[in-house]
Amino acid sequence: MQPSEKLSCEKLQSVLHQEIPLTRTMQISVAHCDANKVELHAPLEPNINHKCTAFGGSLYSVAVLCGWGFIYHQMQLHKLSGHIVIQHSEADYKTPVDGEICAVCELGDELDDRLGLQKFINIYQRKGKARIKLQVDILFASQSALKFIGHYVVHQ
Amino acid sequence: MQPSEKLSCEKLQSVLHQEIPLTRTMQISVAHCDANKVELHAPLEPNINHKCTAFGGSLYSVAVLCGWGFIYHQMQLHKLSGHIVIQHSEADYKTPVDGEICAVCELGDELDDRLGLQKFINIYQRKGKARIKLQVDILFASQSALKFIGHYVVHQ
Repeated sequence: MQPSEKLSCEKLQSVLHQEIPLTRTMQISVAHCDANKVELHAPLEPNINHKCTAFGGSLYSVAVLCGWGFIYHQMQLHKLSGHIVIQHSEADYKTPVDGEICAVCELGDELDDRLGLQKFINIYQRKGKARIKLQVDILFASQSALKFIGHYVVHQ
Repeated sequence: MQPSEKLSCEKLQSVLHQEIPLTRTMQISVAHCDANKVELHAPLEPNINHKCTAFGGSLYSVAVLCGWGFIYHQMQLHKLSGHIVIQHSEADYKTPVDGEICAVCELGDELDDRLGLQKFINIYQRKGKARIKLQVDILFASQSALKFIGHYVVHQ
């Protein structure tokens, strides 16, 4: 990990833990944070349910925060500040997670992803308000165990 | 509150707190539990975010558990047991919640609601597996602050 990425991880984790106390109980950590990808982890134990798998609400919370963190980091990179709010979400639970929760929000190789992100930044810089739709996956055993689509709005 | 309803509330709260430890940190309580309605509450403080409103992941978790609790109670009433799993959800965040979180899952007056529930029970009794779609609202200042639609599957 590059020193600048390590700093980004520490900054995002500190923001999450300070701003949302429940993330400390859930033991959410930032495993990766750069311009292309944010990855959050959380151990199973504080997020467990009676079937010894992760509680669906915990999976959702890690996913919604992964998208939030991705936008937060993009704003930091562009020296912007604002309120990031989830407006609408869809979640598809595919398989149970009986180990560490690992959420990934990643820019794809497609040109559309980068153009969409650039458009979001441009609109925010011009209007002080912009919307963005992100996909987050909870990965388990190399597959998506939860597909989360989040529609976020950012405003000054 | 009737003694039987009080018992149902205590039973459901105990099940939630035993089976999902995070519900204790979130201080989720069962305010109402009968054949027509399940209502869950959670105070703001353990679920707060940096804007002094409820964290979106907490709102979602209380909503998904309210639907889960509604199905659990219906199963109890019909002397059935099984695993209740969330498969798909949609959440619309309408307004921030800066007070107690209050989630309600309620049968409407429409005949469809009751027929749908009866059909779900009949299919489960016949096949040991059935699906049900429920709406849960997080109410704040007499309005829906979050509309949650959950698609659950119940299996033996």
